[in-house]
Amino acid sequence: MTKQIITISRAFGSGGHTIGQEVAKRLGIPFYDKELVDEVAKQSGFHADFIKEAGEYAPVSSSFLFSIAVSPNPLSTMHTMSMADQLFVYQTNVIRNLAEKGPCVIVGRCADYILREREDALHVFIHADMAYRAERIVRLYGETKQTPDKRLAEKDNKRKVYYKHYTNRNWGDAQNYHLCLNSGLIGIDKCTDIIVDVARMYE
Amino acid sequence: MTKQIITISRAFGSGGHTIGQEVAKRLGIPFYDKELVDEVAKQSGFHADFIKEAGEYAPVSSSFLFSIAVSPNPLSTMHTMSMADQLFVYQTNVIRNLAEKGPCVIVGRCADYILREREDALHVFIHADMAYRAERIVRLYGETKQTPDKRLAEKDNKRKVYYKHYTNRNWGDAQNYHLCLNSGLIGIDKCTDIIVDVARMYE
Repeated sequence: MTKQIITISRAFGSGGHTIGQEVAKRLGIPFYDKELVDEVAKQSGFHADFIKEAGEYAPVSSSFLFSIAVSPNPLSTMHTMSMADQLFVYQTNVIRNLAEKGPCVIVGRCADYILREREDALHVFIHADMAYRAERIVRLYGETKQTPDKRLAEKDNKRKVYYKHYTNRNWGDAQNYHLCLNSGLIGIDKCTDIIVDVARMYE
Repeated sequence: MTKQIITISRAFGSGGHTIGQEVAKRLGIPFYDKELVDEVAKQSGFHADFIKEAGEYAPVSSSFLFSIAVSPNPLSTMHTMSMADQLFVYQTNVIRNLAEKGPCVIVGRCADYILREREDALHVFIHADMAYRAERIVRLYGETKQTPDKRLAEKDNKRKVYYKHYTNRNWGDAQNYHLCLNSGLIGIDKCTDIIVDVARMYE
């Protein structure tokens, strides 16, 4: 079975977005990161800014998965969920539909979990040490309001909590992914090579 | 800096030993898995069978790392440790000396943690899903006393506990390793290719 769908989960600043873009370019397939936001905005009616924000914060409320589990039809009980949880339901549908449409690369948003049962999906986790990521976020994103280490720790923690809330799995656990790559050591280009190579094994 | 030392951590039955052997063969360097046991037996005076057993069980006692931390010279306070902890100190020295001797592949035994500060070390984690591993352990190791799933869960749990006891890190956390590979999906041969390729990047 060809690995058509590639999900990229990543630690902030480790180059996951860049790697995802390069992989999509090399494979000649669509790339979705912030591009997802517009699609979700269209379908949900939520404002793009809210979607970007809520895409990082998990609500401090009762278990999302419990709400889904006890509901025969999540869409009909959505009004009882927090707005962030409602957003996640829309996001899930957008991601599933994109995967149905055809080959693509999707960054973040628990896509690895949402598409976990698709045999044509390859799940990748990109990470790097603090020093490498700190240099990148200052250089590429101009992240200077906080010290880089503080900013990295904060973003990583948000992602852990978000992922746990929506998947009940531990973000960054190697066994959630097919490939985990330290981009600081291996390099962005070589990470891209490895992912493309593994995806193409199935052609 | 050439990546001379390759540590392979692995889920039971995922082919870590086989991959390690192949990588060592391809790179023309020594391979240490059970071979370590003989060296540790020589140095410690412990019997090889005890070393093999204790290499999987962490003692249910006070923190090993605390004992090390409060001791100015661990070797002088070793008599106060459990035998399993004493064994770990010998094992650590053997692993460090092997890495000093030159390029090699080392399987298991928290070698990734022990050699974490060596810039010439490449740390790899091999895993696979239950079905793949269950088939392998029955076929290759004749593991039939328990159901394979039970045996796998038991071994994984022992490794998690052992690793946590001696390193205070979470076994299988992607950020402990440079490369994590799902051997069931990627295949033993391709895993070998990827590791050899990354190790050679530094030649």
